[in-house]
Amino acid sequence: MRENLNDTAVELNEEFLKELLQLDHIEEFRENFFTLHEYDQAQFYEKVGPDIRQKIYQFLSPQEMALIFEALEIEDDEYEAYLNEMETSYAAGMLSYMNTDDAVDVLNELDEDHRDSFLEMMDSETVEEFHELLAYAEYTAGAIMTTEYVSILENSTVRSAMAVLRKEAPNAETIYYVFVVDDDHRLTGVLSLRDLIISNEDTIIKEIMKERVVFAKVTDDQESVAQLIKDYNFLALPVVSENNELVGIITVDDIIDVIEEEASDDYSKLAGISDVDDVDVNPFRAARKRLPWLIMLLFLGTLTASLMSRFEATLDQVALLALFIPLISGTSGNSGTQALAVAVRGIATGEIDGKNKFKLLIREICTGLITGIVCGIVVVGIIYFWQHSLIIGLLVGAAICCSIVVATIAGSFIPLLIHKLGVDPAVASGPFITTLNDITSILIYLGLATTLISQIS
Amino acid sequence: MRENLNDTAVELNEEFLKELLQLDHIEEFRENFFTLHEYDQAQFYEKVGPDIRQKIYQFLSPQEMALIFEALEIEDDEYEAYLNEMETSYAAGMLSYMNTDDAVDVLNELDEDHRDSFLEMMDSETVEEFHELLAYAEYTAGAIMTTEYVSILENSTVRSAMAVLRKEAPNAETIYYVFVVDDDHRLTGVLSLRDLIISNEDTIIKEIMKERVVFAKVTDDQESVAQLIKDYNFLALPVVSENNELVGIITVDDIIDVIEEEASDDYSKLAGISDVDDVDVNPFRAARKRLPWLIMLLFLGTLTASLMSRFEATLDQVALLALFIPLISGTSGNSGTQALAVAVRGIATGEIDGKNKFKLLIREICTGLITGIVCGIVVVGIIYFWQHSLIIGLLVGAAICCSIVVATIAGSFIPLLIHKLGVDPAVASGPFITTLNDITSILIYLGLATTLISQIS
Repeated sequence: MRENLNDTAVELNEEFLKELLQLDHIEEFRENFFTLHEYDQAQFYEKVGPDIRQKIYQFLSPQEMALIFEALEIEDDEYEAYLNEMETSYAAGMLSYMNTDDAVDVLNELDEDHRDSFLEMMDSETVEEFHELLAYAEYTAGAIMTTEYVSILENSTVRSAMAVLRKEAPNAETIYYVFVVDDDHRLTGVLSLRDLIISNEDTIIKEIMKERVVFAKVTDDQESVAQLIKDYNFLALPVVSENNELVGIITVDDIIDVIEEEASDDYSKLAGISDVDDVDVNPFRAARKRLPWLIMLLFLGTLTASLMSRFEATLDQVALLALFIPLISGTSGNSGTQALAVAVRGIATGEIDGKNKFKLLIREICTGLITGIVCGIVVVGIIYFWQHSLIIGLLVGAAICCSIVVATIAGSFIPLLIHKLGVDPAVASGPFITTLNDITSILIYLGLATTLISQIS
Repeated sequence: MRENLNDTAVELNEEFLKELLQLDHIEEFRENFFTLHEYDQAQFYEKVGPDIRQKIYQFLSPQEMALIFEALEIEDDEYEAYLNEMETSYAAGMLSYMNTDDAVDVLNELDEDHRDSFLEMMDSETVEEFHELLAYAEYTAGAIMTTEYVSILENSTVRSAMAVLRKEAPNAETIYYVFVVDDDHRLTGVLSLRDLIISNEDTIIKEIMKERVVFAKVTDDQESVAQLIKDYNFLALPVVSENNELVGIITVDDIIDVIEEEASDDYSKLAGISDVDDVDVNPFRAARKRLPWLIMLLFLGTLTASLMSRFEATLDQVALLALFIPLISGTSGNSGTQALAVAVRGIATGEIDGKNKFKLLIREICTGLITGIVCGIVVVGIIYFWQHSLIIGLLVGAAICCSIVVATIAGSFIPLLIHKLGVDPAVASGPFITTLNDITSILIYLGLATTLISQIS
């Protein structure tokens, strides 16, 4: 797949481009380089290393470099290193040619002094636009929108709208939607390029535009914006200010990144990693991302141990009991994580809301009862055949049944509660719920065992 | 957010539409209903219940119904119930008006007889298209593509291309890309509508088209298609047959569904749910999705217990040892899941490939050593202060350190190995790895304890 070239051909092509750069064959390099898609240009740029990149800065204008920079797929904190390779004026020029949303993403990663050194070199209009976007809180519609959209007045004709589109085509992020505004730049309608090209040239925009526009407010959460674009299959969504002025758009490609980011984030938290871990980071940074969870859980684990120590007498009397501790805590951890995953994803995708919250809880209580009873019976059977002891089997089976019910309820109730408190439910990560469930399941087990100690010892 | 109406207004509007249906006010209903976006039409259709839906079938043509059906957001196995509400000829008509990819998704959910009853009523051309798409394996580009694309010959002019676009606009899934083919319908280039509207009308397509077309083969996996669209920020990707004939396109909105599906799938497997669980399913179905994992893990847990039973003598001698079993197995489970999550997501997003596999392993071994040593030291401290026993502290600390190292390596090595064998690494789900790591960590712990038994008893 990918292009008509196979991988070897791509590599040969890269070698060839590198050689052209090293030999200072400007024209030939540019000619070949610009047949590549921007994504491939960016991949080449990332791969070649700092020396060759100096040549690229020499041979490409800041405007040309802007397109490549937009297509880079690097970690947020890596941008600075690339910017430092460029002369400040070159970098400032490139940033001002970039789409505002992408440029702001980069600027957001720099400390204030560094950022200001670039802003000082740009024209005041661009700086103002950047300042506006930089002011929006992270993860909001305002922070991810771009200001390169096409807007027209309601009383224009289709002909003049097409003329505006042709003019804006090289700069606009999308020209497939035209947003219609009144004299105060308030959003009043929307038209797709599809609508435009099938309409008569003299038609007035107001007559053919869609007046029910779905939009986001600058302060809306990026996740709810993603939901809208996904539900309505939009290519772009307009963003309006508090007083309904059109201030930007969010395009579908940015939303794909949001969806992936949120999914990875939920996933990492389920696994107990405080931040999305990346294959490229070194072991020290990876360890730093994992240790907070591990150490917090060590303390919780010690709490488990100290609670268990109250049953030391029971354990001392029947050492056999200890054998089933991992089985019981493991099963309760597993069923809790299952319930947790359903609740967290349901909340994240908007499938669970205020209305069906209660329904979910009831469903989970029933599911817990069913899985608990089935697993309990299975365990009684296994232990009976293995240890030939019905009483131990019944004890472990009952403990497993109760633990599963409690774990399932906790796994769905805790994220719902956290969400209700206005916190991202994904913070109730897998290991946390698992450890909590460890504690309760072991207490249930050893509590039952102590009550029945006369029968089992 | 969403439209200029607030939620209450939306509900009032729904009530009003329902009333119009009940009173058989056809014209007024249609007028109001068609101001809604298809997504909202579909939401209304889903909500109103079977009786009112009968009215909808009466008032809307199969062609109008097709747009609503495409916008439905229901589970795959729910389509059949809706189809059963319609007369067969109405349903068949609707299906043949739907985009082929959406219609095929629906047809795929029916048993053969039911499917054939619809196909018999359609014209032969449509049936042939459906049969072609139905033949592609699930999760491949062929299975998710649509055949409603716009293609033109290389030697057409921009003017004639625009004419084709205008004609195809009502049916094509996207008109923002025009795919260029030769006389044998082989894909030779691509043009965006953006390119077309800024070009002179008499220009020959061949002169302005992009010849390096990124495409997918019908047999390509849907995940790699998603990767391409994401990387290149495409709105649509052409799909070609084995002999390079253009056979369909895949649009970005379908890819968003794929990305979400794959992410949910990985997520569910990390949590040990055999299939994506949904809030709406009843507790019996939810339990059926969770029980296979729970029961499999019960058996693995019994294996743990039986391995532990070899150390019964040690446990009998020092009951205190049992207290730390949940702590050790929990910590090893947690660190294993962390490593697993990084590896599985890395493979899924394409970040980990053949080249940096080895690098990841080395990284994880180092990360395991660092986290293991840190956690080991913390535990020695905790236990020393709590139990005032340095030897027990050292024993548990050493066991935790070794367990973390082993678990981290297993957590990254096992998914890499499974991937190498050509299986989706997400099958190495969280609970599975956790249980494996339980076993090894407890064996390490009790093995060490037995060796040191003279010191600790």
